[in-house]
Amino acid sequence: MSWQLTAADLPDLARGATLLGTGGGGDPYIGQMLVTRVLGDGEITILDPDEIDDELFVIPTAQMGAPTVMVEKIPAGTEPLEALRTLEAHLGRRAEATMPIECGGINSMIPLIVAAESGLPVVDADGMGRAFPELSMETFAVYGVQGSPLALAGERGEHVIIDTGADNRQMESFARAITIKLGGVGHIAEYAMTGADVRRTAVPRTLSMALALGRAIREAREAHLSPFKALEQALAKTLYSELRELHVGKVVDVERRTTEGFARGRAVIEPLGPGAPVEVLFQNENLVAMRDGELLAIVPDLICIVDAETAEPITTEGLRYGQRVRVLGISTPELMRTEAALETFGPSAFGLSQQFLPVESLGGRPIAE
Amino acid sequence: MSWQLTAADLPDLARGATLLGTGGGGDPYIGQMLVTRVLGDGEITILDPDEIDDELFVIPTAQMGAPTVMVEKIPAGTEPLEALRTLEAHLGRRAEATMPIECGGINSMIPLIVAAESGLPVVDADGMGRAFPELSMETFAVYGVQGSPLALAGERGEHVIIDTGADNRQMESFARAITIKLGGVGHIAEYAMTGADVRRTAVPRTLSMALALGRAIREAREAHLSPFKALEQALAKTLYSELRELHVGKVVDVERRTTEGFARGRAVIEPLGPGAPVEVLFQNENLVAMRDGELLAIVPDLICIVDAETAEPITTEGLRYGQRVRVLGISTPELMRTEAALETFGPSAFGLSQQFLPVESLGGRPIAE
Repeated sequence: MSWQLTAADLPDLARGATLLGTGGGGDPYIGQMLVTRVLGDGEITILDPDEIDDELFVIPTAQMGAPTVMVEKIPAGTEPLEALRTLEAHLGRRAEATMPIECGGINSMIPLIVAAESGLPVVDADGMGRAFPELSMETFAVYGVQGSPLALAGERGEHVIIDTGADNRQMESFARAITIKLGGVGHIAEYAMTGADVRRTAVPRTLSMALALGRAIREAREAHLSPFKALEQALAKTLYSELRELHVGKVVDVERRTTEGFARGRAVIEPLGPGAPVEVLFQNENLVAMRDGELLAIVPDLICIVDAETAEPITTEGLRYGQRVRVLGISTPELMRTEAALETFGPSAFGLSQQFLPVESLGGRPIAE
Repeated sequence: MSWQLTAADLPDLARGATLLGTGGGGDPYIGQMLVTRVLGDGEITILDPDEIDDELFVIPTAQMGAPTVMVEKIPAGTEPLEALRTLEAHLGRRAEATMPIECGGINSMIPLIVAAESGLPVVDADGMGRAFPELSMETFAVYGVQGSPLALAGERGEHVIIDTGADNRQMESFARAITIKLGGVGHIAEYAMTGADVRRTAVPRTLSMALALGRAIREAREAHLSPFKALEQALAKTLYSELRELHVGKVVDVERRTTEGFARGRAVIEPLGPGAPVEVLFQNENLVAMRDGELLAIVPDLICIVDAETAEPITTEGLRYGQRVRVLGISTPELMRTEAALETFGPSAFGLSQQFLPVESLGGRPIAE
C-alpha cells in the first residue's frame, strides 16, 4: 500500500536503515538531518511497488563513497537532485519517481531528499535489500536492468555521465574513480527503469521495512520490553523472516583502513564468559562472521552488530573497544540468494573462499523469550 | 592557406610532431599507421585558421594517457570519432571540423584519424603548440575557452561525459582517473569552440609547421646537408623562430617511472669531451635542462633530444644508455609566454622552482655553419 512519510518517521527509519546497513552504508542520521531541513512539515508519497504503473519512469538516486569519509564530509543536499536532473537531460525524459538503490544506511535517505526537493514520489523498494559497497551489486543488475547511463554530481557543480553499456562493474569502477577525485563522496542517479522493471528486479518494501524495524526497537524500549523480541516479530512479517543471535560479547579489536575508496577491516568480539571470540570481516559492510573456524553468517545475509541491551545498531565507524554488543544474523529474501544473485554479491564477489549458507541453517540461535 | 594532406605527408609530419613532442606526447608513428590505414589514397582538408568562418563549429579530438602505455596498447582507431560523436550528441550540434589540442606526438595524428573516418576537415592549429602532460594546459583555456564538456570513449564502447564548468583542472583530474581505469589510454573530444575562438585562443599553423620541420630534416639528410641548419631555416619562417644547441653528448643515465598516469623521470647526458653533464627532467615531456646549476631551457620552451648526427627526435621512451644526442632548445610563440600562459603551463605549473626565461636569452648557442 502506498503511504505518506513525514519528518516524524525519520528517526525510526534511520535506525532501521542503520540496521540494514550491516555496519556500512553511511550514516543515515546525516541524511535524516538533510531530509528534515528540506521537508519541514511536508509529506513524501511512498509508492507501493505492486501499485505503480508498468510505464512509470523511475530514476533511483544515491550517494557513493567510503562511509568513513561521509561522516567527515557532509553533503550540501542539492547534489542528488542535480544527479537526477543530469540523467534526465541526458535521457531526454523526466523521472516520475525516484527510488533507493540501497535501503541500508544513508542511501535510504538520499531519495527522500530528492523527493522533498522535487515533489517526486519514492518507490518503496531498492536494489540491494541491505547495503553493499559497490554500485554493481544490485538485484536490478542481476535481473537485467543495466546501471548505465549513470549521472554523477559533485558539490562544486561537476557533472559526469558514465555509459559502459551492460558492464556494470566498469561503470562502478569509473564512478568510484571520480568519487575519489571528488574527495571521497559523489551523488548519483542510475538504473533508470520502468514500473514493470521495478516489480521484476527490485527488493520490495524495504523502505517501509526499515521504518517498521526502527519503530519496533524504539517502541519495545519505551515499553520496557525486549527490543530483540520486537525485532524478531517485526521481521516475521517481511521477506527477511529469520533472525538469529550469533554472539554476545565485548569488542576487543577493530582494524579499519580506507583504501581505494572503501573502508576495509575486521572486528573481534570476545564472549563475556568463556569461549572463542567471533570475528567479523567487513568491506564497508559486514561480510562474514566466524567463530573458531565455524561459519555463523555470510553475505548476502545480514550481519548486524548492535548494542547488547538496547539493540541500537552500531556501524563499523561506531565500533569501539569495550562495547558490549550482540551480533545478529538476518535472512535475506529468495531473490537475493539465487545463483545469479550470489554471483553478483555473494561471498565470491568479495573474494571470500566460503560458500554461501543460509543463516537459518547455521549455528546462530533464535531470540530467547 | 588551406591545403590537402595525403598519406605521403605522414612520415614527415610524424617526425616533426615527435620533435614538437619534446620527449613525450606519445608515439606519432602508431598514429601514422592508423591514419594511413583509414585514409588510403584519400586526402584530408587542412583549414588555415585565418580562413575559417567565425561561426565554424570545431570539436578538437585527442588521446590521453601515459606515453609508456600508449606504445604497448595500440588504439583500435574508432575511439576518437566515438568521442567526437558522443560530444556532438551531448551538445546537440554536429562538428564542422576537428582540430588537435596538442600538435606534439600522437595527438597530431588523432584528429587526422577522425577526419579520415568522418570526412571532416582539420583546423591547422592547436592548444599546446607542443606537447604537455595535462588537458588543462591549453592556450584555449588560458584565453577563455573552457574544456568542458569533455567526452571520453574507451575501446570497449565505454562513453563518459565530464562537465566541470570552468574548472579545467578538475576536468583533467576526472578524465585522468577514467583513463587509468581504461588501462592507461582514453580518447577524448573537448574544448568545443567556434572559428572566432580558434583565432583568438589557438597556436596557429602548428600542423603545417610539424610537417615542414619533419620534411626539412629529411630533405637535408637526403641532400647530405646539415639537418640542424635545415631545421633552423624552417623554424625561422614560423612563430618558433629561435633554435639553440644546448648540449652534445652521450646518454649515461635515464630514470623513468609511470605514476598517477604520467611518465616521470630524468635523463643525464655527459659531454663527449671534458665538462659537466646536462640533466633533463621530464613529466611525459622534457621540462627543464640544466648544466651544473645553470638553466639552459625551461618549459614552455621546447627541449628536444635528437640524434647527434641525423637530428631524428628521440622520445623519453626511446632514450637508451650510450646514445649520442644533441639537446636543442626552441623558442615558443609569444601567446605561450604571457603571464597567464606561464601560470597554466610554465615552470610553477609543474612544481619547478625556476622562473621562466626565454631560451634565446640563456646559454645555448646558435647552430654552427
